[in-house]
Amino acid sequence: MPDKEFLEKLFKGDPRSVARAITLVENGSAGAAELMKAVFPKTGNATIIGITGAPGAGKSSLVDKLALHYKEHGEKIGIVCVDPSSPFSGGAILGDRIRMATLGLNKDVFIRSMATRGNLGGLSRATVDAVAILDAAGFDEVIVETVGVGQDEVEIVKTADVSVVVLVPGMGDDIQAIKAGIMEIGDVFVINKADREGVLRTQKELEALLNLAHRPDMWNPPIVKTVATETKGVEDLSVAISSYLEFQRSGTQNKERRTAIARWRLTELLQERLLTDLLGRNGTSEKLEILSSKIADKSIDPYSAVEEILSAL
Amino acid sequence: MPDKEFLEKLFKGDPRSVARAITLVENGSAGAAELMKAVFPKTGNATIIGITGAPGAGKSSLVDKLALHYKEHGEKIGIVCVDPSSPFSGGAILGDRIRMATLGLNKDVFIRSMATRGNLGGLSRATVDAVAILDAAGFDEVIVETVGVGQDEVEIVKTADVSVVVLVPGMGDDIQAIKAGIMEIGDVFVINKADREGVLRTQKELEALLNLAHRPDMWNPPIVKTVATETKGVEDLSVAISSYLEFQRSGTQNKERRTAIARWRLTELLQERLLTDLLGRNGTSEKLEILSSKIADKSIDPYSAVEEILSAL
Repeated sequence: MPDKEFLEKLFKGDPRSVARAITLVENGSAGAAELMKAVFPKTGNATIIGITGAPGAGKSSLVDKLALHYKEHGEKIGIVCVDPSSPFSGGAILGDRIRMATLGLNKDVFIRSMATRGNLGGLSRATVDAVAILDAAGFDEVIVETVGVGQDEVEIVKTADVSVVVLVPGMGDDIQAIKAGIMEIGDVFVINKADREGVLRTQKELEALLNLAHRPDMWNPPIVKTVATETKGVEDLSVAISSYLEFQRSGTQNKERRTAIARWRLTELLQERLLTDLLGRNGTSEKLEILSSKIADKSIDPYSAVEEILSAL
Repeated sequence: MPDKEFLEKLFKGDPRSVARAITLVENGSAGAAELMKAVFPKTGNATIIGITGAPGAGKSSLVDKLALHYKEHGEKIGIVCVDPSSPFSGGAILGDRIRMATLGLNKDVFIRSMATRGNLGGLSRATVDAVAILDAAGFDEVIVETVGVGQDEVEIVKTADVSVVVLVPGMGDDIQAIKAGIMEIGDVFVINKADREGVLRTQKELEALLNLAHRPDMWNPPIVKTVATETKGVEDLSVAISSYLEFQRSGTQNKERRTAIARWRLTELLQERLLTDLLGRNGTSEKLEILSSKIADKSIDPYSAVEEILSAL
């Protein structure tokens, strides 16, 4: 059980305690499960905003400016960045410090990058846990920023209350830029760097795609134009986000959505736990190493290797 | 055991048999493990080329032109596309048909998009299996094209013999465009759409980043400029790919690399298998549904739910 004093400080939003709690879940430490059991009942008050889009779309600048906007309105903001392409937390920590300096070092804005932990995965699970920790710690808005548009990232963004997809002018000429899956998760679309050439064309193409897309919830996603580096359009974005949240609250699909998110979280957790349990058994990790070497030599195939590991139990 | 006739046709490169085999591994069908055991000893002859980069970078065009280039040299090419953002195989199949028409409908080029299968994941595993099937079916080059730059996609590209990272001019002004992880996996870099403004700047910035990056293998990744839509630079790309493969063959790190790939594959397979086994047990799937609903209602936390599922076994 995590000690009472630590939890009290955490729920008051003490930055060191928040940081320590996130490190616990990131490392999958022994105390993580107990911590999350204590955290869970305290969640549900924050607005969780997922922001995704292609690398180079200027997501970080946009997130920083949006955070500043909320801060100016007297709110506390937590930012969790997921960057699966960066395997070293060193770089991430440096980046966080630079952004913290921009955002003003104070306890109203907390920023944290989640690093990958190698083969064992668990990044999505750790991210969702980090968001829950910030929620329980009393942050009003928690922004989840994902670099990349992989399967895990899409799932992470889906767990947010509102999902913002960021595009830039000139990407619309390649149909790959706006795939069905991304279209479906976007509750609000942003065309950032809207001072660049081609913004009208991108907007037209996006509108055409949105008209084609079937939205079971009947929400018509707004398109907001921003120039994040000049804080242009940031207020519009916050209005679009509020409108969607308003719409969502009045709907009936909320329970269904939350159940789907819970199912995904549970499955992720189960998978991680099953593998950890397996590798924790006597000799299994060593066996995995030996078999990996054998697969590399083609003296066994991976499927037979899996059976060998499982049959030894 | 898959029947002999099917395997014989598969190993001769019969397109229908290849398609059927990939569907088997994609669906995680009962026969998939047995099939892969038969496929595995036949692998190791194809050159596996991984191509990744941001959405909108023009990867599909580049892959198609590269495939045509190899085809003109009398080779057989397999293409596997991974698009985690597209949850429906319908769209993927349509896209494949359009590309097939461009590439010329014949048995020298096989193209297949891998679709996600929802919560159970397995996309990476299925993709790596599909590549192995094409390898065993006698394709000379197998190109793995991943949209998105998520964790799974990076892992998939790592399993290739050579990894190509595609950029476009104008992305270099955002440091997010070229993250450490992507820099590390790139054996060859392409600046596509090189007829656009800003190509020199992107090249300079990429060179600067490459100079900073520590490459334990001492390979100096070349930067190739292409205009895929006009087939410009495609031959240069094929030369750069060959140079890397030449370099790699002379090196000693091959075994280490293959072992790391094998370890990742084995872990992925294990995780999928453990979850499938668990959900296959009497009542576990139903329990998962009930608990998901309870988590959505906040009447239980996900960690306690995992324990409830595991303790019932």
